[in-house]
Order: sequence, then structure tokens, then C-alpha cells
Amino acid sequence: MKIKVVRDILEANQRIASENREIFTRHGVFVINLMSSPGAGKTTLLERTIESLKDTIPIGVIEGDIRSSIDAERINKLGVPVVQINTDGACHLDGNMVRECLRELDLSPLRLLFVENVGNLVCPAEFKIGEDHKVMILSVTEGDDKPSKYPLMFRESSVLLINKIDLLPYIECDLERIRASARDINPGLEIFEISCKTGEGLDRWYRWIKNNLAS
Amino acid sequence: MKIKVVRDILEANQRIASENREIFTRHGVFVINLMSSPGAGKTTLLERTIESLKDTIPIGVIEGDIRSSIDAERINKLGVPVVQINTDGACHLDGNMVRECLRELDLSPLRLLFVENVGNLVCPAEFKIGEDHKVMILSVTEGDDKPSKYPLMFRESSVLLINKIDLLPYIECDLERIRASARDINPGLEIFEISCKTGEGLDRWYRWIKNNLAS
Repeated sequence: MKIKVVRDILEANQRIASENREIFTRHGVFVINLMSSPGAGKTTLLERTIESLKDTIPIGVIEGDIRSSIDAERINKLGVPVVQINTDGACHLDGNMVRECLRELDLSPLRLLFVENVGNLVCPAEFKIGEDHKVMILSVTEGDDKPSKYPLMFRESSVLLINKIDLLPYIECDLERIRASARDINPGLEIFEISCKTGEGLDRWYRWIKNNLAS
Repeated sequence: MKIKVVRDILEANQRIASENREIFTRHGVFVINLMSSPGAGKTTLLERTIESLKDTIPIGVIEGDIRSSIDAERINKLGVPVVQINTDGACHLDGNMVRECLRELDLSPLRLLFVENVGNLVCPAEFKIGEDHKVMILSVTEGDDKPSKYPLMFRESSVLLINKIDLLPYIECDLERIRASARDINPGLEIFEISCKTGEGLDRWYRWIKNNLAS
């Protein structure tokens, strides 16, 4: 019985996510579902990426948080359209929440839409929202054992951004262990090592976005 | 209908958690439900705490993870009884999972039981497991906006351990903002600033445990 209910929810979500995907495709908008633990650097990555690309690519953002509009306010300062979803306790975004945002967000001028999910390394990976790609961030401060302990998100993502590499001199973290265990779970995973603070490694991430927009 | 299902699950869990609580009380075991984001330092805190207290207090540990037994292996090396729960995808521990562990764990010799929850700043806070206190860790690398964005865990916890303060020189994090916003949500919250790496601040945490065991 319990399994039945869960399956119903996932199937209903899958249907709405597919409809979202059609809407995005019709508008020619490439959609990235950005996921990570709390505080791994999702909003900072978006700030950096928007600053670098907004003059050549029209970008919009949907900000998902349980509470508050702190992140939407940060993005709003950059002059790109942003809509905040407050999940009011829910631990992930789903297709329906994203659909509701589309009433407030004009897709017509956009080419790229970032959906920043709730900070959670577990639940968001289970729910499609109509994205082209899931992209995840792992901060080096979270430790090099995370792929083995939270495999689903690593399996579902197309790109893994290993962030805060500027802190490597001050902590114990084996990057090779992260890379090897993540690729063991998902052999096709693209992995970029970055620092949103210093800007190191971000060029490869921007190139990945541009290549995917062009294709 | 959806609300009904969720309420049923929470009520059933509450009943099992209350039964667990009676079992723990009968055995004179003080139980701490330890929660945080992935990689904030739960297992390292347990290692430190066990090393410091195990000669005077008989300690046991239940390790909750989605996958793997990495954490249980770390605890096992310290020579205290440990049981690993693998939730196989589930994002939190519940009363029933902890009950199952009690078949494998002899409570009779114990005075203190740590239950390390799944790394997740959202869902674990909703489910009681029969604990005396919920204790949470926030790493300074997660950022000072976390109480406003994830209020439930801060509200439910008796103690907030702000960890990795050795990294403060290398990051931007306003401890006073964390303290003020956490106390705004939960005025009775005990807050200790610690570094599990250097050992700074851990004495106050050990004293809190001893005082609570004595009362």
C-alpha cells in the first residue's frame, strides 16, 4: 500500500514534468536543475555564471527554498528575471511547483533557465521538474565519502561541480577519491573542479553550458 | 487526502517513538538524535566524544546512512557497540528503523546512546525516534543564512553545535548572524562553537552531556 502511494506520486510528477519539458522546448529554453547540500554554493555559482554569461545569453532563475527569499534577492540584484518558490517545509521541488512559477515568469525572451532546488543531497534527485540536465555541486568541505553515501544524486546528474577547491589546503579531502567513486556510480558524469570564490575552473563550466545551448 | 496520509504516517511514527522512549527509560539510557547536512561533521564529533567519554560513560551508537557502512566502521574502531542502519534511499530515520536496531544492540550496559541520522538538514527533524534530545551540527562552511532557510531543525533541536570554526579565517561567515537567527527561531537553544579538528570548544559540549546524564 505504501509503495503504491509513492509510485502514484512519482508517476503523477513524471507526467507534469514531461508537460513542463514540452513547454520549455516550445520556447527554446534550456533548463538546468541545480542541486546540492545546503551551503555547497548553488546561489554563488548562479551569481558568477549570470555575471559572466548574461550579456550574451538571456537567463532566468527559479529559486527553491523551504522558507525566505534570501536567494531570490541575491539574484534579483543581477538584473535577470527571478521567481522564488517557498516549499513551506517540503524537502524538494517537484514538477507542479515549477509549473506554478511559469505563471510569473515569461519564458519568451529566455534561452537558459536555472532552477535552484532546495538544499538537500537526497530527495531532489528523485523528482524530475522538466529539466534538460541535472547538475550537482559537492563542496570539498563535505568530505570525499559522499558519492558512496548518497549515490542517487551522483547517478542522476550530468555534471558534478566540485566546489570550494580554494579550501583544499586547510582540510582533508581526496579529490581523486571523489572522482573515482562518482564515476563508478555514473561513468558518463562530467566533473569540473571549481572555486566560486576565486573563479578557478569556471571557464570549463561556462563552455559546457555554451556547447549544450548550441547543440 | 494527501494531508491525511502524511498525518497517518507521522502519528504512527509518534506512537513507535514513544514506545522506544519507554524502552530507553527502562534501561536508563540517555538518547541523542544527532542531525546535520551531509559532511558537517557528525561522525567526527562522535569519534571525538567517544574518545573523551568512553572510559567513564558506557556509550553505544546507531549509524544511519542511505548506503554504505563507512561510518559504522569508523565508530567500530573505537571499541564501542555500533549498529548500522541502511535506509536504502530514505532521507531520514524513523521510530521503526531505530526499533529494529534494538534487536542487535544490548542496551543493558549502556548509559548513553547516539543515533546519527541521515545527512539532511530538512527531513530528519520531522521524525521522532524516541530520543531525549535532538542535537544538530551546522558547519561554518554552510553559510550564516541557514537558520532562516531551514528553520524546523533549529526549532526542534536542544543544542546547536557550530563546527569547523578553524576554517573561519578562510571563509565569509558571520557567527553572530547564525546565533541571532537561530535564537530568534528557538530562544532556548544551547549554542556551542566547536572545531572537531582542533578540539576547541568541545569541553562545553562534554559538560552539557554530563550535566544531562546526571539530572
